Amino acid sequence: MARDERGVTPQSEDFSSWYNEVVTKAQLVERGPARGTMVIRPYGYRIWELLQADLDGRIKDTGHENAYFPMLIPESYLKREAEHVEGFAPELAVVTHAGGKELEEPLVLRPTSETVIGEMMAKWISSYRDLPLLLNQWANVVRWELRPRLFLRTTEFLWQEGHTAHADEAEAMAETLQMLDVYEHVCRDLAAIPVVPGEKTPGERFAGAVKTFTVEGMMRDGKALQSGTTHYLGTNFAKAFGIQFADDAGRLELCHTTSWGMSTRLVGGTIMTHGDDKGLVLPPKLAPYQVVIVPIARGDQAETVLAAVRELAGRLKAAGIRVHVDDRPQVSPGFKFNDWEMRGVPLRLEIGPRDLAAGTALLAKRLGDQGKVAISLDTAPEVLLDTLDDFQEFLLERATDFRDSHTVTVDAWEEFVAAVATGWARALHCGRPECEEEIKAATAATPRCIPLEAPAESGSCVRCDAPSAYGKRVLFGRSY
Amino acid sequence: MARDERGVTPQSEDFSSWYNEVVTKAQLVERGPARGTMVIRPYGYRIWELLQADLDGRIKDTGHENAYFPMLIPESYLKREAEHVEGFAPELAVVTHAGGKELEEPLVLRPTSETVIGEMMAKWISSYRDLPLLLNQWANVVRWELRPRLFLRTTEFLWQEGHTAHADEAEAMAETLQMLDVYEHVCRDLAAIPVVPGEKTPGERFAGAVKTFTVEGMMRDGKALQSGTTHYLGTNFAKAFGIQFADDAGRLELCHTTSWGMSTRLVGGTIMTHGDDKGLVLPPKLAPYQVVIVPIARGDQAETVLAAVRELAGRLKAAGIRVHVDDRPQVSPGFKFNDWEMRGVPLRLEIGPRDLAAGTALLAKRLGDQGKVAISLDTAPEVLLDTLDDFQEFLLERATDFRDSHTVTVDAWEEFVAAVATGWARALHCGRPECEEEIKAATAATPRCIPLEAPAESGSCVRCDAPSAYGKRVLFGRSY
Repeated sequence: MARDERGVTPQSEDFSSWYNEVVTKAQLVERGPARGTMVIRPYGYRIWELLQADLDGRIKDTGHENAYFPMLIPESYLKREAEHVEGFAPELAVVTHAGGKELEEPLVLRPTSETVIGEMMAKWISSYRDLPLLLNQWANVVRWELRPRLFLRTTEFLWQEGHTAHADEAEAMAETLQMLDVYEHVCRDLAAIPVVPGEKTPGERFAGAVKTFTVEGMMRDGKALQSGTTHYLGTNFAKAFGIQFADDAGRLELCHTTSWGMSTRLVGGTIMTHGDDKGLVLPPKLAPYQVVIVPIARGDQAETVLAAVRELAGRLKAAGIRVHVDDRPQVSPGFKFNDWEMRGVPLRLEIGPRDLAAGTALLAKRLGDQGKVAISLDTAPEVLLDTLDDFQEFLLERATDFRDSHTVTVDAWEEFVAAVATGWARALHCGRPECEEEIKAATAATPRCIPLEAPAESGSCVRCDAPSAYGKRVLFGRSY
Repeated sequence: MARDERGVTPQSEDFSSWYNEVVTKAQLVERGPARGTMVIRPYGYRIWELLQADLDGRIKDTGHENAYFPMLIPESYLKREAEHVEGFAPELAVVTHAGGKELEEPLVLRPTSETVIGEMMAKWISSYRDLPLLLNQWANVVRWELRPRLFLRTTEFLWQEGHTAHADEAEAMAETLQMLDVYEHVCRDLAAIPVVPGEKTPGERFAGAVKTFTVEGMMRDGKALQSGTTHYLGTNFAKAFGIQFADDAGRLELCHTTSWGMSTRLVGGTIMTHGDDKGLVLPPKLAPYQVVIVPIARGDQAETVLAAVRELAGRLKAAGIRVHVDDRPQVSPGFKFNDWEMRGVPLRLEIGPRDLAAGTALLAKRLGDQGKVAISLDTAPEVLLDTLDDFQEFLLERATDFRDSHTVTVDAWEEFVAAVATGWARALHCGRPECEEEIKAATAATPRCIPLEAPAESGSCVRCDAPSAYGKRVLFGRSY
């Protein structure tokens, strides 16, 4: 728990406590009554809505249509794809009773929807003219987590899951990489997280996938967060559910399918990428309030100042800025400053009678060059829009510097151990699952991805000296 | 089932078959694998998205914030409000196993969220300064339905549920009526359904409410569809969950709470309000495609015509019209005309070489004055925007005429029986639950609402001659 009501445990002391305190005190989220569930409060949900609106636009712009599939899936469906059920069986929540009776066949709550969507795709696709079939859904999913953490790993979470069917492997692979690119842009452009896109090693693949791709972000404790994944499923699910099409010569062929998902987890990733010992730091593009104005005046002058503040807020809103006026009478300006710093608002404006007389306001940034700057009330909308853009860019640069200064190219085992203690290691690896397991047992680090953009390189495994696989270095790190 | 592949059973022959065939053939929705569930296909989901975007805006404009609460609720929570559990117990789906183990306490899938939200409200509210608390969530809910019908009554459905807490009854009642007004406008302005807002009689109230309000729409078979409800919950849930606040004198008081919901059911209501024997008729504001353009040309001319069609489509899109070009090579123009009529597209444009030479296109409306009209390609965007507005208005007027001509003010029992056989009856009623039951047993009709806007009137009950209650006439009808 925190030292006092308002402060939080420093990141350097205990990152995990810092995280739990910040997400709760900033009123983003809290634990739900059922084990491992979360309540997303308005301030946290707004971040998700902003993410969702942007990602939904990108999903539609790339030709996908939204649909909705049932959450309740017959247990037998999961069993049709052998690897899939093996991967998900331990995490399933099962409805056995409904309407006062025991069900003949138990229903599972979707942990992901490949099975039920595969079943429907098989009905909807008959000819090559029905392809590609490009679907997406926004939904809640349930996975029984042993060690739940708010936003990062909860029993129920919100996500989008894309599911597509194609005539051949080339087209399905192009889709898989296109959506990885979309995820990379959402992370970079909105959340200011400089993720590394890459392929997962076989041991880290999605259950039932032929290839899995990921975007990995580095958190401020040096750990990695898998922030979105895309999967080329080959014909595995097409075989299990009979997803076939007649080609232009009338021959029946199996479809090649993909799936891809991004979730409320990214809200947690944003917090852990930018936050500091004062609390949250939100990128302007995801901030529920981009600017908070604190009026500073007592007695006779309070009303005059508040009127000017509201007029300014109106102009900022008209300029497309998400602005909030903190006019709470019961707390002091100092309390408000701390409160909005804790809650990660990018910019704060203070306006008192003297500022008003001078036609200015004092601008303070949540991070970066410190000190307050007087800005003109007349040009405030343009100045703040520019400052928000700069702040967004600053956060991405800061996170990129942090990631780069905590990523080391290593060849010796001792260097590897040191690198993954505080960040990531770029290392050659033999590709053997047993060797991955040994590394994990020794250091807690796992292969995060084989970066798409890495020079060709080969040699011997950093751990076991066997010849390296993959033709390039693998990124290793501890992870969430 | 339908007569042939393309036609549907006429409404007059079997309305229920008409409905089931139309929603399936128009590719809106189909049955999911688990009993009573539905798959909402892209064409149907787009209607929901358009509804959702508009309603979400109105919910935010009235000061509410979105949040998200867990779907899994401990079984014991439901039992804290006696009437609530009595109403919902028969419809609950229960998770008894998760993560490979039997749960200590079973979890129910939310049938509605008063309980879990009440629990959180109790934590978040401490003083009068925390009020009003105005929350909304977009979510799926599960109610085990004995007689499921696509969109109208499914085991799982999508909705929004608003939940608010207030300092006193007056404020909570104002909220309850404000949201009823929002629902009325969504129904009228978007779905072109001239709903009647009113209060439910005690027997038709939400389980746990002090007062329930509804907007009732008349379907083309004369039955009523409850299209949205708002509830004043008094202090019932505040008592059960301890939702209290300190007033400005420091005294602890119970909050007065409300809840209100609108769901995917309204998509079904839109279909049953406007559809005809050719299929769907969609109001322009909810139509995924407002205009479909069918190019009509073969051989050499096909490319020239298609290029012109695409240019036009680009201009329509820029004007804010949702337009679709049907360039399928494998089906005839006649097939396309029938197809888009079935799918309810408000306006169709046909363009062939001769039209192109004349700088025109042929415009056909889905309903209303028949016959094709040549419109100029140059002014097409403005003309079509106007025509869409007119069409939206026409549907509302048509539905209003239908409703009014199927609603009869009755005083004699025989008149009542005749009226509810084809529509609604305005009748005086004694207000006794037993009498409501007798009417239902005799005619299948129930009190739909006590309309807000009805003249003061009293006399004797249409059924039992006892003195009338409510001070005004009650609207009776059969319902979905």
